[in-house]
This record gives sequence, C-alpha cells and structure tokens, in this order.
Amino acid sequence: MKITIKDIAREANLSLSAVSQVLNNKPCRVSEEKKELIRSIAKKYNYSPNQIARSLVTKRTHTFGLIMPDIENIFFSSFAKRLEANCRRHGYALIITNTDDKYAEDQEMMDLLIARDVDGLFLIVSTESYQYVEMMADRLKRLNIPYVMVDRVYPEFNCNKVFFNHEMGAYLAVKHLIEQGHRKIGCIANKLSSVNRDYRLDGYMKAMREYGCEVHDHYIMEGNYRIHSGYHATQELLKTDITAFFVCNDMMTLGVFRKLHESGYAIPQDYSIVSYDNTIAPFLSDIKLTSIEQNVGELGDTAFQVLFDKLNNDQLAHQEICLLPKLIINASVKPILSNKR
Amino acid sequence: MKITIKDIAREANLSLSAVSQVLNNKPCRVSEEKKELIRSIAKKYNYSPNQIARSLVTKRTHTFGLIMPDIENIFFSSFAKRLEANCRRHGYALIITNTDDKYAEDQEMMDLLIARDVDGLFLIVSTESYQYVEMMADRLKRLNIPYVMVDRVYPEFNCNKVFFNHEMGAYLAVKHLIEQGHRKIGCIANKLSSVNRDYRLDGYMKAMREYGCEVHDHYIMEGNYRIHSGYHATQELLKTDITAFFVCNDMMTLGVFRKLHESGYAIPQDYSIVSYDNTIAPFLSDIKLTSIEQNVGELGDTAFQVLFDKLNNDQLAHQEICLLPKLIINASVKPILSNKR
Repeated sequence: MKITIKDIAREANLSLSAVSQVLNNKPCRVSEEKKELIRSIAKKYNYSPNQIARSLVTKRTHTFGLIMPDIENIFFSSFAKRLEANCRRHGYALIITNTDDKYAEDQEMMDLLIARDVDGLFLIVSTESYQYVEMMADRLKRLNIPYVMVDRVYPEFNCNKVFFNHEMGAYLAVKHLIEQGHRKIGCIANKLSSVNRDYRLDGYMKAMREYGCEVHDHYIMEGNYRIHSGYHATQELLKTDITAFFVCNDMMTLGVFRKLHESGYAIPQDYSIVSYDNTIAPFLSDIKLTSIEQNVGELGDTAFQVLFDKLNNDQLAHQEICLLPKLIINASVKPILSNKR
Repeated sequence: MKITIKDIAREANLSLSAVSQVLNNKPCRVSEEKKELIRSIAKKYNYSPNQIARSLVTKRTHTFGLIMPDIENIFFSSFAKRLEANCRRHGYALIITNTDDKYAEDQEMMDLLIARDVDGLFLIVSTESYQYVEMMADRLKRLNIPYVMVDRVYPEFNCNKVFFNHEMGAYLAVKHLIEQGHRKIGCIANKLSSVNRDYRLDGYMKAMREYGCEVHDHYIMEGNYRIHSGYHATQELLKTDITAFFVCNDMMTLGVFRKLHESGYAIPQDYSIVSYDNTIAPFLSDIKLTSIEQNVGELGDTAFQVLFDKLNNDQLAHQEICLLPKLIINASVKPILSNKR
C-alpha cells in the first residue's frame, strides 16, 4: 500500500496544501519546524513525490505540449523541430498536436494536452480562431499552466507572446526594390488572412508612400498563400506596367516563377522579385532568390526560453517578444534606372 | 471518497484482475454469477470506469500516438497529416512525438506515450534502431497496446507493418531509362542507410542485369539523402560516360540539378534523370521531373486501418502490407538510340 500526501497530512495534522507545497519545494508559509516534520514523515514511509504526479498540477511531468495548425507547412515543422531540440536539451519531452487550422481543434487539443499533464503549452492558433478571439482569450485565461502564443498572436490580448514583425519585413523588401530603381512594384498579398491581414500589405504601402511611388489598385493582387494563387495573380500583373514583384510568401513565389517561365520571361532580366520566408532556396537551382527571412530557429529558441522562464518563476510578468525579419539579398533583383523599364 | 476496483475486489472477495476484466468487458473465465456480483457492487457505489482510465490500459482514451524520426522531412510530415485526418474522422486524437532519428528517443517516446494512455501506437523507428533490432523487438513484444510499424520495418520481426516495396520502385525507374535507350546509367544510392540499404540499389542492379547493361563500380555513388551529397556524387559521375541518372531520393536530385546547371548541362537534353519520392514537382518551374511516387496518403490510410482493425479485434493476426510505388512519367528522360550518347 502506497502512502499518499493525504496520509502524511493526517499524521502531521496539517493541511493538504501545506504538505503538497513543502514536498514540492514551493514557497509557502509553513514554519521550518513543521516542514521538518512533514519531510520526516515522508521519509519514514518512503514516500516518493512521483505518486502525486498525476493528481497535482504542481508536480512537474517534464513534458510540454505544442499545438500547431499545419504540420505539413515547412515553417511550422521546422519550428517544431527546433523547439523540440530545446526541450530535449533541458530534459523536457514535447508532445505535438495538429489542428488542421481549425478553431474547434484548438480547443480540443488544449483539453487533450492538459488532461495529459503537460507542464506548459506552446500555442500556434488556427487562422479561424481570429473570428473567436474573445472566446479563445477566456479559455486561455482559465489555463492553470503557463503558455506562450507563438507566431500568430491576438494583438489586444495580454499573455506571453513570441512573433515576427510582418510590417517591417514587407517594408524592407519593398524599400530594397525601390533602392534598386524600381517604382512600379506589384504586390501579391493575402488580404483575407486574418493573421497577417494588414501587416505585410501595410509594409508595402508604407515603403511605396515614403518614397513617393504611385500605388495603383491593379498593382495589388489577392493570393491565398498557395502556389496557384501566385500563378493567377501573375497572369493579371503581367498586364500592368510593373517591373518588379513583392510576393508575401514563398509558395506564391513558386507560382510566379511558373507563370513567368511559361510566358518566356527571365528573372531578374525581365522582372525582379523579392519573396518572403526564405525557405525555398534549396529547391532552386537556376534562380538566386532575394527574400525576407523569418529566422525560425530564433522563434523556437525564444519561445522555449519564455515558457521555461515562466515555469521557473511564476511571478514573472508576461513577455511579448517581437522578432525582426531580415532582408537576404541574392540575385533576383536587377538594378534599373529610376522611372525606366 | 471514490471507490476503486480494489474496493470492489475486496467486497466481492475476488481477484483484482477478475474485477478489471469483467468491468472492462474482456473475455474471462469468471462465472456469470460472479460477474453479476461485481457489476452490482460497482453499481451500488456508483463506480465509473473512468476512474481507472489512467491505471488500466484496457480503458480506451480515444488517443493514438505517433513516433516519427524527422518532423521536418516532408514525407513524414505529410504522412502525419494524413494519419491525423484519419484519426479525426474516427473520433481519435493523435499525439505526435519526434525522435530526431535517435534510438534512445524511440524508447523514451514509447514510454512517454504509453504513460499518457494512448490506445495504440504508430511507429516510424529511427535509422539508428536498426543496430539494435533485437532490443527493439523485445521492447515491442512487451507493449500491451496494439501498434503498427510504418515505412521502416524490421524484416525478421513479426508484427503489424505497412511499408513500401523499395526494390520494385528502383527497378521501375531503371527499367524506364533502359526502355528509353539508356544503358550507361549512374546511380546515387544511400548504401550506408540501414533502412533502404540494399533495396533501391538492388532494384537498380536487377534492372541493369536483366537488360544486360554493364554495371561499373564508378556508376554507383554513395549519397546520404541530402542535397550536397547529390551534388558531390554528380561531380564524380560527370567524369564517367553515363547518359542518365537514377537518384534514390528527391533531395539528392536537387543536388544533381545544381551541379548540372553550374556545369552548363540541360535536362533532359544532356542528361536524363529519374528521381525517387515525387515530392519536389511544385518547386520546379523549368524541369518536369520523372520520378517514383510513394503515395503517402495510401500509407497514412492503410496504417490507420491496420491499427484500427487490431484495436477492435484483439484476436486479429498481424498484418504485413507492402504498398507498391508507381512510376510517374514526366519530361526528364530523353529517348536515345541504344548504345549511343
């Protein structure tokens, strides 16, 4: 028969929470004398703290949970891999679940992971959840373990967050094109995405305005972050007088490549391109793509550190860390004389 | 105070296992009379089987576990996504863990998932584990939940398995090249990989011999399934008289592309290529790659079905399902006159 903290509490004539706090080395108001008593009873019965692993959230399981929207997306899977390496280095295991970018699954996977006693949670919410921010915020406030929102965050909600500055990335991309002499710049953006809704497009607008470049409606095309949408957007943009593309993700850039190739145009001789993500360079043997890099390793390292800090210091205030993207200059932009094609 | 099966066993004066079997509706040798007694005691105390969810593996949690070697590898992450869709459709959640292709992690993740009460396990073992097949087999035999080995299997070990026929895939690839008139065919294979060690190379050898093509040692280059190894192998193969490449995975093919492009060669005008995996087509705008496809959707569907069947019928014999790869013909092979370059 194994002894429980209840038995120890009874024998010591102390409260259950006092015993739990002492045996878990939590700060508490129990006198040194009583602490000693609790420890001696625990020792007498050969009590192992493992016994309460599942019943008390105060006991660590050395497991973290990750909720992510699309395991097939290389950005998220690279993040998961890097995060897992951090966890392993610190003696933690990582349990991963995939939500298929669905709000109902965000909820379900939170329940599932908490029922499995994770010590903390990394959360990349679904795009869909942006329609239910208030409900999600309510749910998150009721979580009794530390958590970090990663990459996709709710601007108005106060919690631990690690994410990238999308407006700045787009601004850097377009500024680079302008500095190379381009002024008629097309933009393929995901206007409908709640996540990066305005940010990347905002960065484009900011740079264009700052340098006095005219922005025409037909310069801005809608895409859904998938290859074919880049292809179709290019079909339309080829009818305009643009000399360069700013494309808001790498998948759409693959569609741009395909359409330009089919139409007999060369990069950067005929059209210049700056892409976003910097994930497809290994797949391209003929084009050296200039792109905005979001360092996924930095995202994984930082997210881990924020959660780990919080776990080890419950009193720590929420951290909001905004990571800065970088412009990686390669050879997909041709310098041109201003105002000339 | 909640009642446990121990209490019920004591009151019924029966063994713990008898009570557990009866309450979990397992086949057992307990008389109908005693079964009735057990059930009536359980009812009297309002005993809920939920209480034993964590202590008895016989209780279902409607959660499966997946252990995989590299979440960043698109083949595995696509498999995970498809598997998860199957699980969801059947009311199951999927918990994913990544082993970083390490044997010690195979072990640890098995412990971790079992401690978290998964109903069954999908297992893609580490390459490293092929050095410890006996120990792994021992461990697997002791698992008290159903499991399926997926993609990477131990040939001599009897259990549920779903995998692809690698020799046949390679054979189809090389046969296609030969039928288009190529007889001097280079092969970039992962000879050191324990997993596909001989199979893909075996298929190459089989086709070459069957059609009476000479196999030279310098036609066969070692690669490690990464881009740079394909690049370096190509450097060497360009010194030979080959007219075509059979490359054992898509990543190495990217390296071949890069080296050929740098050296000013065009595909298929100068060299023909058949690759393996068929995963990189979306990334290639200028080359239509002929490749062997391993249908990852079929792998996910079949693995799920095998585990699900076993879970619902404990008596089912082990299933070993070998899936057949397909040749996807595109435009990276040029027909040539036999024996001529």
